[in-house]
Amino acid sequence: MNNSDPLKNIRVVLTQPSHPGNIGAAARAMKTMGLSALALVRPHQFPHPDADARASGALDVLQHAQVHDSLAAALNDCVLAVATSSRQRELRHEMMNAREAARELLARAVSHPVAIVFGNETSGLTSEEAGLCQVWARIPANPEYASLNLAAAVQVFTYELRMALALDGAAQAAEFAPAALGQVEQLYQHFEQTMAHAGFHDPANPKRLLPRLRRLFARARLEAEEVNILRGFLKAVDKLRR
Amino acid sequence: MNNSDPLKNIRVVLTQPSHPGNIGAAARAMKTMGLSALALVRPHQFPHPDADARASGALDVLQHAQVHDSLAAALNDCVLAVATSSRQRELRHEMMNAREAARELLARAVSHPVAIVFGNETSGLTSEEAGLCQVWARIPANPEYASLNLAAAVQVFTYELRMALALDGAAQAAEFAPAALGQVEQLYQHFEQTMAHAGFHDPANPKRLLPRLRRLFARARLEAEEVNILRGFLKAVDKLRR
Repeated sequence: MNNSDPLKNIRVVLTQPSHPGNIGAAARAMKTMGLSALALVRPHQFPHPDADARASGALDVLQHAQVHDSLAAALNDCVLAVATSSRQRELRHEMMNAREAARELLARAVSHPVAIVFGNETSGLTSEEAGLCQVWARIPANPEYASLNLAAAVQVFTYELRMALALDGAAQAAEFAPAALGQVEQLYQHFEQTMAHAGFHDPANPKRLLPRLRRLFARARLEAEEVNILRGFLKAVDKLRR
Repeated sequence: MNNSDPLKNIRVVLTQPSHPGNIGAAARAMKTMGLSALALVRPHQFPHPDADARASGALDVLQHAQVHDSLAAALNDCVLAVATSSRQRELRHEMMNAREAARELLARAVSHPVAIVFGNETSGLTSEEAGLCQVWARIPANPEYASLNLAAAVQVFTYELRMALALDGAAQAAEFAPAALGQVEQLYQHFEQTMAHAGFHDPANPKRLLPRLRRLFARARLEAEEVNILRGFLKAVDKLRR
């Protein structure tokens, strides 16, 4: 956590990147815009000479990169995660363009770690990975050929973050403490159990109930105290007998 | 000259690029943003397999690239040329950032060809080359490491051009039906009753529970279907006995 430079609280997460050269080029893009926190989820090859070569003067970003087994682990202490994609929106996500997402990330990064998540070069983010994020962000692109290189997409988003800082300045810290994403995931699990207990949710036939709940609360950007209130209510419900 | 799509009137000029891979990556960046006119001034190696490989789905941009002996020849029919650089301004140029330069280019591209000029990867634009341009544009960058990859710089400028074009377009209508406020008030009443029933809320000593719930859901801007889901869950809880 860095209280003086919000760009240092913005983590770039690459999930399952195939080409080590792209990891290096992403590190270079980040450093040119003043970001330094890089996280890799199950990279196919890392470390690798191609990553070092394409990083150019940003070897330090590569050397400090954190490698994780899962996206959930990479996001555990973050209060906001933005999924990037060239695909159209999914039902459950709040949709933003890169500029809007940068403002949202920066506003929270003043006081807490946040993340921007990029999927595999070919397949993008899995549905499960996207479900861990609260906002879906797209770079407006040519509909006939929207395939930005991974590092090029990192360059555009980090450029927008730097522009947002230059134009808006550091926003005021939020008045209330936002919930950590690990805490929010526990809330979703609790909702699922309690809804099943109440006979409202059938785990064998879940339909779209849980994705809809995730979407609602993702949009709200839950605070820590709100998660406590909702879990307190669910605990009280758990004590009721059918 | 294309009268219907101003992006087609914006020429990307690379002067003396050293690495053919960068030419290909620049072509890909251009195509993702809807540009197609690429001009090369004395490229060190072109055509080249590395250019083709990095162009990915933008081979057509490479195949139509114009090769010139001089920057003056590449700019001959243009009405505006913007020089890009990470260096500080030169006295003789009007200075803009990438966003301002994109607006300026787009405004003229509606009716005439214009150009955005990128120098050699290491040495940038020569003084003579810069002298052929009317505007000097910079991508705001980390003062300690401002060295964007050539294709990454092309990506940022062409992204700003596409954004400048998009911001003139009409906003989209909301896709989901928002909840009526009366419906939301009924949800709050239902929450209050069910929380009391579950022993989580004491109507004689309400504290700040209900204002906190209101605040959370106000921020989410509830949709009609989400209110139905939450009330369905509360009804299921109401059927449970203490």
